[in-house]
Amino acid sequence: MTPEPELDRLLADVLRQVKAEDPRLAEIVRSAVTHLHAFVREVRPTEEEWLRGIDFLVRTGQACTPTRNEFILLSDMLGLTSAVDEVNHAGPPEATPSSVEGPFHSPAPARPLGASIAEGPERDRAEPMVVHGRVTDCAGTPIAGATVDVWQADDAGHYDTQDVAQPDGNLRALLTTDDEGRYWFRSVLPSSYPVPTDGPVGGLLTALGRHPMRPAHIHLRVEAAGHRPVTTHVFVAGDPYLDSDAAFAVKDALVVAPERRDDPGEAARWAVDGPFLDFAFDIRLVAQPAQAELAAVTLGGVAR
Amino acid sequence: MTPEPELDRLLADVLRQVKAEDPRLAEIVRSAVTHLHAFVREVRPTEEEWLRGIDFLVRTGQACTPTRNEFILLSDMLGLTSAVDEVNHAGPPEATPSSVEGPFHSPAPARPLGASIAEGPERDRAEPMVVHGRVTDCAGTPIAGATVDVWQADDAGHYDTQDVAQPDGNLRALLTTDDEGRYWFRSVLPSSYPVPTDGPVGGLLTALGRHPMRPAHIHLRVEAAGHRPVTTHVFVAGDPYLDSDAAFAVKDALVVAPERRDDPGEAARWAVDGPFLDFAFDIRLVAQPAQAELAAVTLGGVAR
Repeated sequence: MTPEPELDRLLADVLRQVKAEDPRLAEIVRSAVTHLHAFVREVRPTEEEWLRGIDFLVRTGQACTPTRNEFILLSDMLGLTSAVDEVNHAGPPEATPSSVEGPFHSPAPARPLGASIAEGPERDRAEPMVVHGRVTDCAGTPIAGATVDVWQADDAGHYDTQDVAQPDGNLRALLTTDDEGRYWFRSVLPSSYPVPTDGPVGGLLTALGRHPMRPAHIHLRVEAAGHRPVTTHVFVAGDPYLDSDAAFAVKDALVVAPERRDDPGEAARWAVDGPFLDFAFDIRLVAQPAQAELAAVTLGGVAR
Repeated sequence: MTPEPELDRLLADVLRQVKAEDPRLAEIVRSAVTHLHAFVREVRPTEEEWLRGIDFLVRTGQACTPTRNEFILLSDMLGLTSAVDEVNHAGPPEATPSSVEGPFHSPAPARPLGASIAEGPERDRAEPMVVHGRVTDCAGTPIAGATVDVWQADDAGHYDTQDVAQPDGNLRALLTTDDEGRYWFRSVLPSSYPVPTDGPVGGLLTALGRHPMRPAHIHLRVEAAGHRPVTTHVFVAGDPYLDSDAAFAVKDALVVAPERRDDPGEAARWAVDGPFLDFAFDIRLVAQPAQAELAAVTLGGVAR
């Protein structure tokens, strides 16, 4: 970057005033200040542009309510939430990758394996789908008694918390794997859906020429004693928004193709009537000792 | 920076989605996104830290009212407003440097040269001060008919808009230079004062171990036909906060030492009674053709 003595002096002055007792706070603020000054030097905003940016931040803050966080949405839409997820949850390539939690998690009802979690109007509209898989460690050893917390939108792209027609807890479940590490439940194929577009972040997406769509997915959070928990999504192959998820949460290993089955024996095995969609997704957890080793390797390999 | 393929891919995905029709918006957003991702990679925030940062932004937005902009205050306190000022108003070394406008400008009453602008309780509390100087171009040629817009806090650090005891327009003036480019008025020495500390930005200053004080100053905005206007501060030498202005607006060329005069002839010349403070500040404006040349030089010299 071209030296600009006044700007260099100014940045040095600001950094010198970071005298936080908390060294971590000082580190975070110094980095933020340095990048913000570099941004100003790089784009050389006019005063009008700067005030427009300030106004965007004010409006984003003022769009927040107890049930809506427009700054988290902004973080999601700029891929920052996924970046924070990545720096915290990178694992070995064998493990199921994590993905962002998103704003729609809520406590799910405990349900028996094989339960139908579709108890709203979608049950009569949509083809049945069986979701099943196995929770194992990274070597493939099944993990019995793992909890699988599942939440998804319906075939119209709505969660129960957004849709008065759905009963509370609809399309949510807290399951426990059997002795062979298996979980299974009956549901419907979720739909892609837009993030909220009626606030400043929606305006930004429009100005950037972006759509607000998230590709169809099911959320899972899997926990098992002695293993590192994982929060992730499983995405539906073929969705038109897989390559342009507004929240940048898609990873190749998280995309599953549902298969249509029309075999009465198979249907009976899963307790569904007639043709159904078969959606198989195995989850590989990292054992905690393996996680500690990994952390040591990562810290050793990253310049800090 | 150490390569991290998932983070590299993620940033590339976000940048690829910046498809704004407005090329300037695209440039600004690409730079912001790149710096924000670099910040995440550098500090590797935990999810809890990230959410604390989000919460700070939400509270900052919600502290804003029609008469208070907490994000502008944040920009000031991180030296960003001064950086934006610098990239827009850098001038030749002979010219009076600019400084930030701050939040206290309001339309000032036109006053004759020599007027007393101290019409509130400070008039009876504080020693009289004469502020005077000459508006010239960078070669020293006087500029007649220049307007000098002045605003300042009183000896207790309050502007008229913050203090019901002061009449409207107190310690403000719109003056016009005489045929020799001179301006002068009577006032009182302003006091240093704290920025508002009752919001999230005040909390940040405390956490950073910083004080909220701005060193004593008078604001000036000077305009003259055929010249580039300048908005600046003049600071009072000896102020204990000169080296740590919370808004990072001090420049050496803007610091003036008031001198105490106890000569009845001098007092009579400025129409003050008894001893007074003499505060002299000349303003050198850049002629517009010189400005155009400067812009060409600056653009040629800066890698973009």
